[in-house]
Amino acid sequence: MESVTLTTVDFFAPVQDHVAEVERRMRAQANGQNPDLDAAIDLIISSGGKRVRPTVSLLVGGMIGASPERVLTLAAAVELLHTATLVHDDLIDGSLLRRGMPTLNAQWSPAATILTGDFIFARAAKLAADTDSIDVMQLFAKTLSTVVGGEISQMFESKGSASRDDYYNRIYAKTASMFELAAVAPGYLSDVFSDADLDALNRYGYEVGMAFQMVDDVFDFTSEADDIGKPVANDLRQGLITLPALYYFEDHAEDLDMVTSSNGHAVGREDMDRLITAIRDSGAIQQALEEAQQYAERAVRALDRFPNGSEKQALIDLANYVVERLI
Amino acid sequence: MESVTLTTVDFFAPVQDHVAEVERRMRAQANGQNPDLDAAIDLIISSGGKRVRPTVSLLVGGMIGASPERVLTLAAAVELLHTATLVHDDLIDGSLLRRGMPTLNAQWSPAATILTGDFIFARAAKLAADTDSIDVMQLFAKTLSTVVGGEISQMFESKGSASRDDYYNRIYAKTASMFELAAVAPGYLSDVFSDADLDALNRYGYEVGMAFQMVDDVFDFTSEADDIGKPVANDLRQGLITLPALYYFEDHAEDLDMVTSSNGHAVGREDMDRLITAIRDSGAIQQALEEAQQYAERAVRALDRFPNGSEKQALIDLANYVVERLI
Repeated sequence: MESVTLTTVDFFAPVQDHVAEVERRMRAQANGQNPDLDAAIDLIISSGGKRVRPTVSLLVGGMIGASPERVLTLAAAVELLHTATLVHDDLIDGSLLRRGMPTLNAQWSPAATILTGDFIFARAAKLAADTDSIDVMQLFAKTLSTVVGGEISQMFESKGSASRDDYYNRIYAKTASMFELAAVAPGYLSDVFSDADLDALNRYGYEVGMAFQMVDDVFDFTSEADDIGKPVANDLRQGLITLPALYYFEDHAEDLDMVTSSNGHAVGREDMDRLITAIRDSGAIQQALEEAQQYAERAVRALDRFPNGSEKQALIDLANYVVERLI
Repeated sequence: MESVTLTTVDFFAPVQDHVAEVERRMRAQANGQNPDLDAAIDLIISSGGKRVRPTVSLLVGGMIGASPERVLTLAAAVELLHTATLVHDDLIDGSLLRRGMPTLNAQWSPAATILTGDFIFARAAKLAADTDSIDVMQLFAKTLSTVVGGEISQMFESKGSASRDDYYNRIYAKTASMFELAAVAPGYLSDVFSDADLDALNRYGYEVGMAFQMVDDVFDFTSEADDIGKPVANDLRQGLITLPALYYFEDHAEDLDMVTSSNGHAVGREDMDRLITAIRDSGAIQQALEEAQQYAERAVRALDRFPNGSEKQALIDLANYVVERLI
């Protein structure tokens, strides 16, 4: 694990101080209007993750020489948008912990949690508008539509689907769309950027984001049940078929029939446990990781057109870290 | 009531076709990604109200010669933002009907209702960005913060408060801030506008919005219990003290003590019914209406600096209608 830790430090190093400033700008959105709300926002930001998305924005901004001030604001907008979606997600899923910290809905009423999520959306939109770029603002709004539209589709349509297209669409909406925003938006904060450059940045965000979610979906199978009792292969137990299961079902049509014919819900506990063990022990895990690896490689290649330097190297390290973090 | 109906028609007349186009643009935000979501958005827009806010934007835009195309987009953004807040409000309040139509939460799960509200926020933000004005976008985000921040304050702090400042702050956040957005934003879509002109438009929106909410708060006392069982003076029963009650309590300190000492909740049903009858029969209703009238008059005066014409006259009619609709 040590080498993974080093890799993390490596790609954060060029922007470490800036990530701290991004967090400061996020916290500043608790604007003193209401002490309870301020405390809630502080709690939510304190339980934040690795800040991978704003790191992408900061590194891209550095690589292409975009205005540092505006990139900081953009990075805070991106991470705050991501944070707002988590507040409503945790409420909907009834999750009581996130990264070991109590979620807002574990402590507040559903009503207060809904409104706090809305408030954070509003403040993220304000930060996006503060970048002073209509292009950023339009992409920001489009990304929010994509993320939320994807969640609604997942709620109504995706359960029990073993379509690869459904899977790719779902992880694009859930994760890759936000990475695209993080990667391409700094391009709009630099006057001299060509469409080809913007396409390349978008491609980097897309490929890294897809790889990121694929590896998360592998984690769901390979990690053990966590301390709050979320079981192994929680997605599959909920009827949601992710990449490792898709590979496994290619050679096990009878197990696919069992899952899809029941829409995931009526599969008995014993049958489901047997199926999950079979997937864990099959080559499907490795196949899924190799597919994620291919996405990461394409992400790296998308950077070819940009000048070498510490930020570009860090973006390459970040793409590799996304798939190597559990190997 | 007939004269009120005529007044309504009068101020809508100059923009009637444009209001239809605004509704078309709102409906177009159901983008075909998901049929359930599209149906929900259609339902919500079909149960829409009088479209007073977009009418303000359209009339101001016409009066000052702002780009009609961009004003239409702005008006759709304003009304869709208002609509999104209602989706979450109805869920939080558990309301099953709005304007005689079933609410979304009456038919869908809380989870689906939360996400649909989020999606409508996203589409409203997209329309705001489509106006191509960073000023509009910043004001849009600020207004959303104000509206949601006000709801959070109301949830945590306002119950049982008999402070006039609390009341004004609350109705500003709840209603007047959105009217300000509707009135001033068209100014940003016109190149030749001075700060003084923008201030005057903002003033019109503020005064009309405050009057609008004050009259709604009078309605809460003067109308009878509605068909879904929402009782007369529902706000006061929930511990929320509005303008008619504020006037009444000025001369009835003992009743105020009864309400504030119990935070509204522990007042017995009989005592509360007696109090509400006393407020209805007192001069407080008329005092509240007269205060609303003063706001409407200031709204009309804010238009003095603009050239006479059909749109300006319609804005004057609209301000008067807001307070005359129940007299």
